[in-house]
Amino acid sequence: MRPEVLEAMLPYLEGDYGNPSSIHRQGRTAERAVDDAREQAAALIGASPKEIILTSGGTESNNMAVLGARGEPGRNGFVTTSIEHDAVLEPCARLRDRGFETSTVGPGDDGIVRAAEMAKAVGPGTSHASVMTANNEVGTIQPISEIAGICRERGAVFHTDAVQAAGKVPLDVSELGVDMLSFSSHKINGPKGAGALYVRKGVELDPLILGGGQERGMRSGTENVAAIAGFGRACEMARERLTEDAARVRRMRDRLAERILGEITHVEYNGSKESRLPGNAHFTFYGVSGEDLLIKLDEYGLAASTGSACSVRTQKESHVLRAMGFARERINGSLRLSVGIFNTDEEIDGAVDALTRAVAELRRVSPYRAKYGF
Amino acid sequence: MRPEVLEAMLPYLEGDYGNPSSIHRQGRTAERAVDDAREQAAALIGASPKEIILTSGGTESNNMAVLGARGEPGRNGFVTTSIEHDAVLEPCARLRDRGFETSTVGPGDDGIVRAAEMAKAVGPGTSHASVMTANNEVGTIQPISEIAGICRERGAVFHTDAVQAAGKVPLDVSELGVDMLSFSSHKINGPKGAGALYVRKGVELDPLILGGGQERGMRSGTENVAAIAGFGRACEMARERLTEDAARVRRMRDRLAERILGEITHVEYNGSKESRLPGNAHFTFYGVSGEDLLIKLDEYGLAASTGSACSVRTQKESHVLRAMGFARERINGSLRLSVGIFNTDEEIDGAVDALTRAVAELRRVSPYRAKYGF
Repeated sequence: MRPEVLEAMLPYLEGDYGNPSSIHRQGRTAERAVDDAREQAAALIGASPKEIILTSGGTESNNMAVLGARGEPGRNGFVTTSIEHDAVLEPCARLRDRGFETSTVGPGDDGIVRAAEMAKAVGPGTSHASVMTANNEVGTIQPISEIAGICRERGAVFHTDAVQAAGKVPLDVSELGVDMLSFSSHKINGPKGAGALYVRKGVELDPLILGGGQERGMRSGTENVAAIAGFGRACEMARERLTEDAARVRRMRDRLAERILGEITHVEYNGSKESRLPGNAHFTFYGVSGEDLLIKLDEYGLAASTGSACSVRTQKESHVLRAMGFARERINGSLRLSVGIFNTDEEIDGAVDALTRAVAELRRVSPYRAKYGF
Repeated sequence: MRPEVLEAMLPYLEGDYGNPSSIHRQGRTAERAVDDAREQAAALIGASPKEIILTSGGTESNNMAVLGARGEPGRNGFVTTSIEHDAVLEPCARLRDRGFETSTVGPGDDGIVRAAEMAKAVGPGTSHASVMTANNEVGTIQPISEIAGICRERGAVFHTDAVQAAGKVPLDVSELGVDMLSFSSHKINGPKGAGALYVRKGVELDPLILGGGQERGMRSGTENVAAIAGFGRACEMARERLTEDAARVRRMRDRLAERILGEITHVEYNGSKESRLPGNAHFTFYGVSGEDLLIKLDEYGLAASTGSACSVRTQKESHVLRAMGFARERINGSLRLSVGIFNTDEEIDGAVDALTRAVAELRRVSPYRAKYGF
């Protein structure tokens, strides 16, 4: 979290403890904080504040969009991709249980979904569709404006899960032409527990959580004022520093990738190199298990991830890499390294050293030693 | 918020910024914080930690229970009361839209729902029922263990919204015999944005928010670690200090009520005096509007409320007071004053003075002057 974000939150954790729905002074102070954050969140994606619904985070935003969208009457199709986060895929399964016809479009082996494939799947029966802006494992950026155009043409509501992309690459909802867009606070150095769903004016949506009627009836429950204030500040800082931060992060990520590809053998860089988030690096180290690697790296003080960090610890194979057509061995040896705004060149070099050492140690006892001649 | 609560949160807003689902050290630290909070929350209501689902707050907990409960197959009835919070009444309306037969039991003029009335409404077709432990406007405590017994006898799942009661009066889910119980962090001097739903082992529930499978699949989304840690600490402190805090708050509340009833004319104390939360005082000041009173009190630095503080600013009449059979004039002149653990005797006296002055000023220009002879 950025220190400025905590600073923005503290007043609402200390003195200013009002409920934004109350009429008294404390309530009005809290309401102003929520309004300010709404403006900051809207500005990050080029939306109007009235099009922002504040939620408890990206998962809730995605559930709202997928389960709540009211497409044109009579349509009962939902189209998504096989590389979405579970926060889209699980609601998709629930739509299926509710009688929706759901279909799932796969990516190329570069982790990118082709707009032409979406065009085949979206038809006159499609109520709504959801395609992520950037993938949470391999960081690949999808052709959202093209896909949004296809959906618009065919009268389907289009949602994008931009949890990974917002604040990392420039996003403008008008340029993209999306109807709904999810984003999250803790992915942009804000606090956990806050996020938003952009809903274009005129798009109809059923709320997921009902009650006191907060967020113009779209998301009931007392607003988490402190987290919202922090989220707003994080949006503002992400927007102001996007160009500079992205360039620095990209440079570090490229250095990381170059050194790894140059200094470690039998390694593959996964996913498109061009259409990719600045901070994402994703590799397969043949002959080792990504899980073992992760545990060893943790001993060396390096936090990495296999698969999605957002799903509970399961040993299940990454559905994203499987959808990209990777064989089991390639999936098993894969590891994601994310570079953040607080990382330094020294840390990048330290990470490469830790990784080189960990891979060598694991390969020394690998059952694949003979196969690869480690 | 208790200062100790903020202290418990800060590590997770500063250094320990891990995702509880990650395997690395930061992830494990975060996971331990969530586990500890779960134990603290469970202890407050006599539950096992495995029976606690952490949520974003009381509204979400209530939605989960009302919309997600899977009663015995073939049953499609839902029973609730007319004095519930909108976070129960709105999901009840959605159940009705989904084909449930819903029925609503009214309270006596003391704001208490009779178990005998519930017994008439809960039948062999009742899937589940929901009755609040204590009302959020008049503070009246409902005969929950009796009502839970009726539901159990008839095979209906029973939920109670204990958002107002938890931490204020002793609650034990086994003694109460409830199947589900909602409670919230910011009502017990914890941070906003956290809460829990107790679900008795064996009770089946469909999740409201789907995705990464956190909370054993019952509530997906990256855990709001800081808010959860604060919620846990707030539960622990509420439990440890309940007897002492409740006695002190009750004494202050009684002093407030006695002075108001003794020093202001044409005033009514609403709701049962006996079966009532220690901190709740609710009055009707005849001849004035509660809204006007609230605004004047705010000028004097006193935060009060008409109706529910949790619902957005609407001038709509309190559905609770209407259900209690109050005439419009009595509803319009009503005001809730809540005494909290941080209040002092001096503040109580100051509140009475402010109120006396505000009521006198408003009555001087009241259209009811002649009627009451102010």
